[in-house]
Amino acid sequence: MSSFSDRLAAAIRAKRTALCVGLDPRLPLLPAELVTQHGPDAVAAVEEFCLRVLDIIAPIAPIVKPQSAFFEALGPAGFLALRHVLRRAKDLNLITILDAKRGDIASTAAAYAEAAFDVLDADALTVNPYLGRDAIEPFLTRARIDGRGLFVLVRTSNPGAGLFQDLNCDGLPLYRRVAQAVNDWNAGRGDVGAVVGATHPAELGELRAALPDVWLLIPGYGAQGGSAADVRRGFRADGLGAIVNSSRGVTFPFRPDDAKWESAIESAARSAANELIC
Amino acid sequence: MSSFSDRLAAAIRAKRTALCVGLDPRLPLLPAELVTQHGPDAVAAVEEFCLRVLDIIAPIAPIVKPQSAFFEALGPAGFLALRHVLRRAKDLNLITILDAKRGDIASTAAAYAEAAFDVLDADALTVNPYLGRDAIEPFLTRARIDGRGLFVLVRTSNPGAGLFQDLNCDGLPLYRRVAQAVNDWNAGRGDVGAVVGATHPAELGELRAALPDVWLLIPGYGAQGGSAADVRRGFRADGLGAIVNSSRGVTFPFRPDDAKWESAIESAARSAANELIC
Repeated sequence: MSSFSDRLAAAIRAKRTALCVGLDPRLPLLPAELVTQHGPDAVAAVEEFCLRVLDIIAPIAPIVKPQSAFFEALGPAGFLALRHVLRRAKDLNLITILDAKRGDIASTAAAYAEAAFDVLDADALTVNPYLGRDAIEPFLTRARIDGRGLFVLVRTSNPGAGLFQDLNCDGLPLYRRVAQAVNDWNAGRGDVGAVVGATHPAELGELRAALPDVWLLIPGYGAQGGSAADVRRGFRADGLGAIVNSSRGVTFPFRPDDAKWESAIESAARSAANELIC
Repeated sequence: MSSFSDRLAAAIRAKRTALCVGLDPRLPLLPAELVTQHGPDAVAAVEEFCLRVLDIIAPIAPIVKPQSAFFEALGPAGFLALRHVLRRAKDLNLITILDAKRGDIASTAAAYAEAAFDVLDADALTVNPYLGRDAIEPFLTRARIDGRGLFVLVRTSNPGAGLFQDLNCDGLPLYRRVAQAVNDWNAGRGDVGAVVGATHPAELGELRAALPDVWLLIPGYGAQGGSAADVRRGFRADGLGAIVNSSRGVTFPFRPDDAKWESAIESAARSAANELIC
């Protein structure tokens, strides 16, 4: 069985780009033709949109990151759609990161890990570190059974991220303390990554240097404001070590009434992939 | 429309106890008769168990707290069961706290709020503060539309909670910085509470004093080790201000082969309610 890190590196090398496509399906942004076609069944429209995005981006990008919240907001049928989307991604040989930012302890964390890795069969999951090591361990134990991974929130991309993450904790900001813990949990294996926003390029460079064996998952590229030059700081000298996510920029580069939405997505994906060439 | 704080206080006064019953349904712990009756349909057994627990505890306890993870681990059908459980709780006039520890920003947080408050119709939701104010605001905006509430993780009950929560941030531990933010977000309204573990009685007393208008949700009572004397420190002089959760202690006080599991739950609930009399 390949390690998570090896699978990630192989997928990125095969497509020569570090692009991760985020799936944040919002009903008001969907192509009008899909909404019309499915009538009152909004979940079916969302699912079809996501499946078609996967078909378009599969030859271009190595990784996809569905955002659980947008599927949960559609109820039990949305959860089922998420499962279908993750299954199609796997069939297309995409690496899948379920963005759910889970964080809980003991048997509760184990249940979330079961939901993400067994029920939904994601390759990796984003997790929140606030509860400490107990909140990471059960996820990691499950992930290591069959070569899956975690991405721990370290420095998030939102404007107010610093309220707690930048607090000075005995000489180091909190996010650096969390980064140290991520480094320990990763233990050189490459299956515990760090989420670090593209909107903080200085921190990105600093964390790249501090965490040489840790994969960085970089949100905030494109629509949220981070540039290709900003995210470059997240890569190692060998051109690997970072995954750069674009959601809206790749999946919604069209207006709902645009009949050529599929080619718009393909162009946006190719352009983002080229900017993040490895 | 009554405020969340008023509804909570009225429910607690009506039943004269601050007991919150946690629903963490684990298949291996369910009564054997339910498992046999539903055969291969594990989700139906879980749902029936939870509904019967609700019927038993409704005359005794004012609040229930289903743990989302255990339902998510059962897949889309588990999500539907969670909805049925929350609906029954509402029909029984119980206040419901969905324990999902969500935390994300902007439209993603809004989607989680939609899942919790519109799709699942919970009265309150637990949230994780690591992402900062941006991660609380969208939840709060939605909650305030119709008198719902949030409980922000401040000092969790797990053994390793201190790894980050106790870090010294310019003279105050991180959890006290988060508590200050909770106090600001609450703004005297009583709809932004704090999760503070019963396993930390000193911190509980300290936070009670620092946050006079903030409801404390106290996990870790009973099976996790916190005593009735420990949790007393979380209450105000008027006898209100705290909700004390017991999950396993109330819902699993029997062995799977015990035919009298329902009366065991009733006794356990009455005994916990009496220990937490208001």
